[in-house]
Amino acid sequence: MPLAGEDRVRLQTLQEWIAPELASLESEIAKLLHSDLAMLEEILTHVSLGRGKLLRPTLVLISARGEERAPADAVFAAACVELIHTATLVHDDFIDEAETRRGLPSVNTQWGAAAALITGDYLYTKVFALLTGRGLHDCMRSLARATHAMSRAEMMQLEWRRRMDLSVDDYMLVIRNKTASLIESSCEMGSFFHPDLRKHHAALARFGRAVGMAFQIVDDIFDYHGDQESLGKPVGGDWREGRITLPFIAAWNAAEEGERQSLRKAVDEHPDPSVLWPRVREFVDEHRGVEASYEAARRFGSEAKEALDLLDGSPQHEILSTAADYVLGRLH
Amino acid sequence: MPLAGEDRVRLQTLQEWIAPELASLESEIAKLLHSDLAMLEEILTHVSLGRGKLLRPTLVLISARGEERAPADAVFAAACVELIHTATLVHDDFIDEAETRRGLPSVNTQWGAAAALITGDYLYTKVFALLTGRGLHDCMRSLARATHAMSRAEMMQLEWRRRMDLSVDDYMLVIRNKTASLIESSCEMGSFFHPDLRKHHAALARFGRAVGMAFQIVDDIFDYHGDQESLGKPVGGDWREGRITLPFIAAWNAAEEGERQSLRKAVDEHPDPSVLWPRVREFVDEHRGVEASYEAARRFGSEAKEALDLLDGSPQHEILSTAADYVLGRLH
Repeated sequence: MPLAGEDRVRLQTLQEWIAPELASLESEIAKLLHSDLAMLEEILTHVSLGRGKLLRPTLVLISARGEERAPADAVFAAACVELIHTATLVHDDFIDEAETRRGLPSVNTQWGAAAALITGDYLYTKVFALLTGRGLHDCMRSLARATHAMSRAEMMQLEWRRRMDLSVDDYMLVIRNKTASLIESSCEMGSFFHPDLRKHHAALARFGRAVGMAFQIVDDIFDYHGDQESLGKPVGGDWREGRITLPFIAAWNAAEEGERQSLRKAVDEHPDPSVLWPRVREFVDEHRGVEASYEAARRFGSEAKEALDLLDGSPQHEILSTAADYVLGRLH
Repeated sequence: MPLAGEDRVRLQTLQEWIAPELASLESEIAKLLHSDLAMLEEILTHVSLGRGKLLRPTLVLISARGEERAPADAVFAAACVELIHTATLVHDDFIDEAETRRGLPSVNTQWGAAAALITGDYLYTKVFALLTGRGLHDCMRSLARATHAMSRAEMMQLEWRRRMDLSVDDYMLVIRNKTASLIESSCEMGSFFHPDLRKHHAALARFGRAVGMAFQIVDDIFDYHGDQESLGKPVGGDWREGRITLPFIAAWNAAEEGERQSLRKAVDEHPDPSVLWPRVREFVDEHRGVEASYEAARRFGSEAKEALDLLDGSPQHEILSTAADYVLGRLH
């Protein structure tokens, strides 16, 4: 999604602070997204065209940067995090049968389901083989935990598809595993390379987890209330694909039993969820589901900043606080 | 596949030598194949019904066993190898659109493609999270390399499907990555837990690699010349699914150019490979593709035994030699 003016500035502020590392990161990622196998090389070239904003590796590098430039291993670990994120998106698109990703055809659309599965597996295992080969055991442990959490979240989403009475707790469990886990791992992992912050790795993990929760809730709000044009995709995708998210859950919990029953009846009568999208959106508006979600995101934003208290005095204190503002700021 | 009398005896010989470890292995595997997520628990229960012969974890435990019983970590590592193997089969079945596995519906058939992808990811990452959590870094490195090799092989197979002029070298590259890598890793990994064999881990890896090559060639021979009844599945599956294997390659290389052109023309005219299977089988028979493959398997068997020379004097020397005989013996 293109960023509004203020957010662009915030992300730039973060990324300028680690400008030298970021340049190395880009070439490290480019180097990793290659293969001697012709079809894989084609797929990886395609995937690298649809570049994201590098939020996760940015967080690794921010946590890693001391008075000196972050070491080469930290840049490498940051690139690994981006590759893992990329692998997840390739598998996700296949699971959701998504036709496009960042304006380009998805791997499953262009090369088929089998190629999408194998590309994801290839990227995951390449990262693991390289990390262990370099002896970066702490990073490996952190990423193994994060990727396992993500696979659990995928299974929850599959099992709980279209479950209209999904609880807030179950929703939080999904997004903690799906999104917060890798952002948590990114923030924690960077500190492994920092002489003074290493002892605060748990605080950085807590910060990353809370920021990750806020990040996903903001994404889920966009899907109900975003500007289709600046979002680059139509709203309502979550509802259509059966993902029940916080705006809906909050509205559901605020509605009267009669309204719920009437909505459930309408859903049972219309197997195609697109038909009901206008009504669902109205339901969420009426019961202030977006406002409640916004409140939740803000609470996670505050929690993230509190986790930074231990870092008082380090430049990370201020710069990560800006990162939290950036994540929430996307809401305006 | 049910084993013939002599082979059953050989596998029993191997497994009796590690009987106490094997009992722990079975309960370790059973413990790992559980989840608190309802659908995943269902899938894992189903998967564990279609139990294999535990060849890979048996090799881990044989390499690990010293004068004392192999330590708990070795049993755990052996269980991890079996889980990785299981994950590979679940992803394989999805890639090949296989409907059954070991007489039961495949995960993709019963729960759908998305569930198969997620189950595989879940098992891979569970193993990695547990191994790193326990600090078994050497095992993690070995398994990361093996799983990465396997993903490369999947991509080669996808890219080289139906390539009738596949070279022997490219075939060997595929099976080395697809099959030999995990058997190599199993033999090597066990030695990490053995006080005296640890220094011979490279020899054990070489043994495992050669045994793995022989194992896959024997499998590929069965697909041309097996007994359908004892195989439990119809022959010709590789040809139908576009996997060009050694019996065909050897025949192709032995045939005259005119015969090749005539076969290629027939393939171009019949998009359904099943139609041509009787002719392909005849072609392979006529040009003695099975005999040539058998020779290749035997060479790898000898290579495996040579790798054991360094282990002379240890009980592993004899027992692993029996393992090599078992793999080749399946041919009779």
